[in-house]
Amino acid sequence: MQIGLIGLGKMGNNMRTRLRNAGIEVTGYDRNPAVTDVPDLAALAAALPAPRIVWVMVPAGEITDGVIHDLADVLDEGDLIIDGGNSKWTEDFKHSEYLVPKGIEFMDAGVSGGVWGLENGYGLMVGGTAENVERAMPIFDALRPEGPREEGFVHVGEVGAGHYAKMVHNGIEYGIMQAYAEGYELLDTKKDIIKDVTGTFKAWQRGTVVRSWLLDLLVRALEADPEFHDIQGYVQDSGEGRWTLEEAIENAVPMPAISAAIFARFVSRQEDSPSMKAVAALRNQFGGHAVKELD
Amino acid sequence: MQIGLIGLGKMGNNMRTRLRNAGIEVTGYDRNPAVTDVPDLAALAAALPAPRIVWVMVPAGEITDGVIHDLADVLDEGDLIIDGGNSKWTEDFKHSEYLVPKGIEFMDAGVSGGVWGLENGYGLMVGGTAENVERAMPIFDALRPEGPREEGFVHVGEVGAGHYAKMVHNGIEYGIMQAYAEGYELLDTKKDIIKDVTGTFKAWQRGTVVRSWLLDLLVRALEADPEFHDIQGYVQDSGEGRWTLEEAIENAVPMPAISAAIFARFVSRQEDSPSMKAVAALRNQFGGHAVKELD
Amino acid sequence: MQIGLIGLGKMGNNMRTRLRNAGIEVTGYDRNPAVTDVPDLAALAAALPAPRIVWVMVPAGEITDGVIHDLADVLDEGDLIIDGGNSKWTEDFKHSEYLVPKGIEFMDAGVSGGVWGLENGYGLMVGGTAENVERAMPIFDALRPEGPREEGFVHVGEVGAGHYAKMVHNGIEYGIMQAYAEGYELLDTKKDIIKDVTGTFKAWQRGTVVRSWLLDLLVRALEADPEFHDIQGYVQDSGEGRWTLEEAIENAVPMPAISAAIFARFVSRQEDSPSMKAVAALRNQFGGHAVKELD
Amino acid sequence: MQIGLIGLGKMGNNMRTRLRNAGIEVTGYDRNPAVTDVPDLAALAAALPAPRIVWVMVPAGEITDGVIHDLADVLDEGDLIIDGGNSKWTEDFKHSEYLVPKGIEFMDAGVSGGVWGLENGYGLMVGGTAENVERAMPIFDALRPEGPREEGFVHVGEVGAGHYAKMVHNGIEYGIMQAYAEGYELLDTKKDIIKDVTGTFKAWQRGTVVRSWLLDLLVRALEADPEFHDIQGYVQDSGEGRWTLEEAIENAVPMPAISAAIFARFVSRQEDSPSMKAVAALRNQFGGHAVKELD
Repeated sequence: MQIGLIGLGKMGNNMRTRLRNAGIEVTGYDRNPAVTDVPDLAALAAALPAPRIVWVMVPAGEITDGVIHDLADVLDEGDLIIDGGNSKWTEDFKHSEYLVPKGIEFMDAGVSGGVWGLENGYGLMVGGTAENVERAMPIFDALRPEGPREEGFVHVGEVGAGHYAKMVHNGIEYGIMQAYAEGYELLDTKKDIIKDVTGTFKAWQRGTVVRSWLLDLLVRALEADPEFHDIQGYVQDSGEGRWTLEEAIENAVPMPAISAAIFARFVSRQEDSPSMKAVAALRNQFGGHAVKELD
Repeated sequence: MQIGLIGLGKMGNNMRTRLRNAGIEVTGYDRNPAVTDVPDLAALAAALPAPRIVWVMVPAGEITDGVIHDLADVLDEGDLIIDGGNSKWTEDFKHSEYLVPKGIEFMDAGVSGGVWGLENGYGLMVGGTAENVERAMPIFDALRPEGPREEGFVHVGEVGAGHYAKMVHNGIEYGIMQAYAEGYELLDTKKDIIKDVTGTFKAWQRGTVVRSWLLDLLVRALEADPEFHDIQGYVQDSGEGRWTLEEAIENAVPMPAISAAIFARFVSRQEDSPSMKAVAALRNQFGGHAVKELD
Repeated sequence: MQIGLIGLGKMGNNMRTRLRNAGIEVTGYDRNPAVTDVPDLAALAAALPAPRIVWVMVPAGEITDGVIHDLADVLDEGDLIIDGGNSKWTEDFKHSEYLVPKGIEFMDAGVSGGVWGLENGYGLMVGGTAENVERAMPIFDALRPEGPREEGFVHVGEVGAGHYAKMVHNGIEYGIMQAYAEGYELLDTKKDIIKDVTGTFKAWQRGTVVRSWLLDLLVRALEADPEFHDIQGYVQDSGEGRWTLEEAIENAVPMPAISAAIFARFVSRQEDSPSMKAVAALRNQFGGHAVKELD
Repeated sequence: MQIGLIGLGKMGNNMRTRLRNAGIEVTGYDRNPAVTDVPDLAALAAALPAPRIVWVMVPAGEITDGVIHDLADVLDEGDLIIDGGNSKWTEDFKHSEYLVPKGIEFMDAGVSGGVWGLENGYGLMVGGTAENVERAMPIFDALRPEGPREEGFVHVGEVGAGHYAKMVHNGIEYGIMQAYAEGYELLDTKKDIIKDVTGTFKAWQRGTVVRSWLLDLLVRALEADPEFHDIQGYVQDSGEGRWTLEEAIENAVPMPAISAAIFARFVSRQEDSPSMKAVAALRNQFGGHAVKELD
């Protein structure tokens, strides 16, 4: 099997390697001439046997949008585009509709696994027709972890369903990380009682109810930098968490823990909190409580 | 009527004035010789006609504890102590039991109103026997706001009930302040749309559903310092909010909004967040996401 | 001054009365022949002197959309439409743009006050040009509460700003109501301590930090039905709370208390909780903890 | 090695089996004559070689308290009691102090693993002196999972530290379960998009960031009862979550996600919500919004 892969960044580059290791021929394209296999998309199309399969692995939003439009100009009827990036699921509808008149097929694939996917394989959640799933299965089998297919791959539903599932996956991820983090902070605060914070997390890796891959990573991080001396408590969010919360609101699904995780990230990025200024001002007004003035 | 008043700080001093304005004779005692009316508690006891009434208005905890024990040594059977400070309600049980063998009566009074109480009167929530409530009613009538008694005073229940009600009052206060503060932050963030943040709050003071005294104070604060330029978003908490939350936990009462208000204050006082360090470290581990390193 | 008013439901009918009481001539239109002053929009337009002012007070969404489009067909250049309903602020942009080519002016007005507005007046937050605000000021002055104009009216910004401010107002309202409700639940749960729950809330109405109009209404409700025997804990939400939360997400504004209020409403409407089923199932899996089976 | 084990319920019975499989002689005592090895505690003490080690595995609170006091009457100086139940960490101080005058040693051991511990081993967090840890290590090695000791066992600190760590472990567990549950509810709600909810969770088991043992259990539960038709969304809580939250409050540690998980359980057990009754009553008061009346 031979496929095209657009985007050879941190994720795409690893995926190219994993696919090649599995015997799939990959022609990669990236704007960065140092890593690309072909000079442009036309060359990519020319290099692939028809009907072509092209996996898009670029940042969500305008860049993905642009790539899909550009691809539409060089691909032919019957070709298949798979968006493996972190696109919002509603984008999939747009992309699919854009491609229909040209006869180009479309699938979305949510991909989880991070930088470890090269070695461990990637958890895959895909949306599209059964025919397209069947057609691309060798790619999915190459990317997913070893073991039973259904433990590392799922055909979630129609176009958009893969990214929807991936979005919720990431929302859950936010919540789990926040849970470990809150527990960490309490243990870290009670060092008069807890003499070995890192050792405590380490001891949870086997046998306990909270064992998980994220726990293993937390242990790894604590062993590298106990008490996180070199790390600021400043956390970005990449979109999926917000979209999950928007979907919760839209569908009247209560989501108190995941929303807490997202709000904690928002706060972490603020130099000072406007809302807490307001509360401090109020306390000063009614109780004469001192406020901390800025120098 | 003549009573003793212990503690002539920000609150106690105002209360002495309001009581005197209402025609109640007040003998005040404070450790600060500049403001006290008598040199010590013995002199206070000597100055009051038996059976005495002494209102205690000192910081909750050890200081209140000490004052009540010291008072017990100079008061006589039939005297009445009213703790008007912010004591935890469980302290009232202790104090009442301590005084029973000496025949000294005890009541607790939750007092709200802050520095404005001198002028507006204080909202009062008291716990104790009907006899003691009756006996101290002239004091309550002097302290409470004008208008119907039941709109500024309540006999909540037995000893402890007054402080319990005041505790919940303050828990609610935390939640309300947080609600205004979150709304403020959103308006403040959207200044491309909201051209007059202060004016918006100001316009809510009459007619709208959210009009309140706290809103009036927020407007006052915004008019004094628009955008809170001189205020840090650093907020203390004084105990009642935590106790409210502890009681919620103890009684399986869900309290998501009030707890959110309390946690927001905790965060506001952190220079950096251990939990957010942990989340940043995790994201770095699985995704290679950059962390902000400390300099 | 003479204006048109479309929508004579609970809110619109009261507003017509208040406007008329203030000496403004109002021609009302409603689909309900029992309350309308004119048979159709054409008759409404014919009844008004040019340049006309028409206040739209119908349910947000499709109905408001339809009314504005229909109005555009019967109004002339220079006329002014004011949307006083609960439209989402982004709708205002659409409506304004739709009317521009026809030379019809547009303003949005957030209106708060509920069924009490007839008597108390309505808090008003408006968006639009300074010229249009000036032109409609007699209407605003008639609708707003007595007292200084700036305590019951604000020109928030351009078109959309009025509804934006009203949206945030309602988000805050959700948070405040939740704070009182959580406090109520704790007091109600501790009736061994709190012998007079209604009386406690009643006593907060004067003097305390939490006094507010919503508190007055809570007292009114408790006096009508102590312990809320006849009321189910089932709470709708009308849109503004969700939009506020969406805006918080969009703008990275932490909103833990207001979101908690919204999620509590979502939960209140569920017969059973899918998420709690999942937690119960998990506990059963790892700990053999019994689950409650459905009959 | 030979030890005593008190409490042969779901957990204790499995632990006896695992210990015996590892070659440790176990004399078990339980009030239930059908499962006990000896008729009473005196017989247990007589059956063990001095200095004795006795592992207590009974419900936390009064029962553990009673067992430790009864044990103190039949044990001798130099014997060691290990409390492996879910006692609150502050209980450990009490128990340890009670035993000191009798020369009986004490350790606390937090044990995680549930009904799966028999096969997988139990994650262990212990508090006590280094000497006692050393002395009991063969027991810990028998109970903990295979693999490196430090991945299934930790000496957390002095007496109480083991249960403290276990408490936080369970708090984290609450948060993680809530995160999966919220994600589940959203996927379950969007079945127009998500055609295979169980399959989606199943596909996360390998390769994804959220893979964990709890996820494996959730898949197991979903496969046994898709959509949880036979399960009510009614969830108990066993104490550790509440204590974790109390500790967070005591130490000013923000804990929004874990608290959300606990509050969700509280709500799940309510037939109707007093707080939501209050909100419904308020909406009715200001807006005339209909309330759902009880039949």
